Amino acid sequence: MNQDLPIGIFDSGVGGLTVYRALHERLPDERFIYLGDTARVPYGTKSLATVERYAIENSLFLEARGIKLLVVACNTASALALPAIRKAMSVDVIGVIEPGARAAVEEAGGKSIGVIATEATVQSHAYRNAIASRAPSVKVIERACPLFVSLAEEGWAETDVARFVAAEYLEEIKGSDVGTLVLGCTHYPILSRVIQQTMGNDVLLIDSGEATAHDVWMLLNEKSLTRRVLEDSERERHLCDDLDHFYVTDAAERFSRVAERFLGSAPSVLEAVEVWGHDELRTY
Amino acid sequence: MNQDLPIGIFDSGVGGLTVYRALHERLPDERFIYLGDTARVPYGTKSLATVERYAIENSLFLEARGIKLLVVACNTASALALPAIRKAMSVDVIGVIEPGARAAVEEAGGKSIGVIATEATVQSHAYRNAIASRAPSVKVIERACPLFVSLAEEGWAETDVARFVAAEYLEEIKGSDVGTLVLGCTHYPILSRVIQQTMGNDVLLIDSGEATAHDVWMLLNEKSLTRRVLEDSERERHLCDDLDHFYVTDAAERFSRVAERFLGSAPSVLEAVEVWGHDELRTY
Repeated sequence: MNQDLPIGIFDSGVGGLTVYRALHERLPDERFIYLGDTARVPYGTKSLATVERYAIENSLFLEARGIKLLVVACNTASALALPAIRKAMSVDVIGVIEPGARAAVEEAGGKSIGVIATEATVQSHAYRNAIASRAPSVKVIERACPLFVSLAEEGWAETDVARFVAAEYLEEIKGSDVGTLVLGCTHYPILSRVIQQTMGNDVLLIDSGEATAHDVWMLLNEKSLTRRVLEDSERERHLCDDLDHFYVTDAAERFSRVAERFLGSAPSVLEAVEVWGHDELRTY
Repeated sequence: MNQDLPIGIFDSGVGGLTVYRALHERLPDERFIYLGDTARVPYGTKSLATVERYAIENSLFLEARGIKLLVVACNTASALALPAIRKAMSVDVIGVIEPGARAAVEEAGGKSIGVIATEATVQSHAYRNAIASRAPSVKVIERACPLFVSLAEEGWAETDVARFVAAEYLEEIKGSDVGTLVLGCTHYPILSRVIQQTMGNDVLLIDSGEATAHDVWMLLNEKSLTRRVLEDSERERHLCDDLDHFYVTDAAERFSRVAERFLGSAPSVLEAVEVWGHDELRTY
């Protein structure tokens, strides 16, 4: 494996940029290829079979471009399709559920754990199961919060509407004396301030993207796959600069606009592609 | 053309059921085949090329099942893809934009007209153009209201959150002294009560689905395509009974659940299908 290859990241759309940002901050010497499946977003209301199919098509697209590691930034794809993706890939695959669950257990101090995510992720109980395998006695309260996605994409993170919606969604979890709350959808970190205000300062929010960046850093070190930086000048990386490549399956203009809202800057290199229907992608 | 064939309806998902309901009420003797493209919903944030492709695949799927007429219930598909659909179909095709625009002009009494719709529909200015061709001097104020879709699907139509969101979205239109407000997305009639409260009783809400049902009734009469009802017993039709067939491209269980929320009853005959990638669908 060539350690200088980029890290592949895919998400159902623009939300995975929060994971890209966490990876970029933790691993400033690495380069990234990001794919947002904007033609088929969202995954959170779709079935296991469909999410698996989309996830494998995305993964094969990135693998064909040359990557040393695949990060499944999408919580729904991580919850539903990780075994299928690993079977289809020859490189290592890291999802966001396991890292998020581990961080939630480590920080909860034995208290209950709240999980907010998409409908599909909640129904899969992927977080609950991952937490139970580490801390079987810890109570887990899960809640789907579909409106959070629209609020984040609309740029309404800091509005009264967001506070209203958060109060409604988080009521039960707030009453359950949780130690940590997992932000189990890539959009939710955009709303972290209003979520923190609603939950109070005693509850630690767990950003699965940040926990995942830590795991990626560990894996690269273990396998001696960290990128070699030969020149000092290469170190001056910026979020979304032209060393990272971004692909979307549709509506690149909208992706750019929301990316700017999420990251403060839009991708320099952004290309619209098709990831389905190609013969080479049909062999799995 | 066999006048006893059913009428085909497609939508990006579950929202088109409001159009189905309007057609069913206006044309109780007709039978319907409904396709909800739940694997690729929503269309409202996607590009022209992608919406066209999805719309044609849906249309060909329905035509292959035998229909006498196609209703494009989805506003986004009607706004972006109607010419492409008409080119691909041998049966008549009716979208929701023209009927909605006509009704808005007729009822506005020369006052301005408000249009609320998805991002893609608003960006296409399909309603504004259709209104301008009838009443060039009438001012049209358009606004995308993406959160309304999530609110309707979440069952939050009658909540304070919905009132908050409606107040935010409708502020400019409310200040523009409009005579009518077009509900230019199939989900919005679910929120009609809160929208009416926000706009006040002087503004008439235009449900494009109802206007479309009127146009379908006209067309069937003009072309002598109304269904022959031979037995009185056949007249006792119920919404979603087993004389109407429903197809979805994914997540039938979720479709059923939201259908019940929208219509008060879930489809008797509901089947999950694939509409893409078939060779016979590739010939357009």
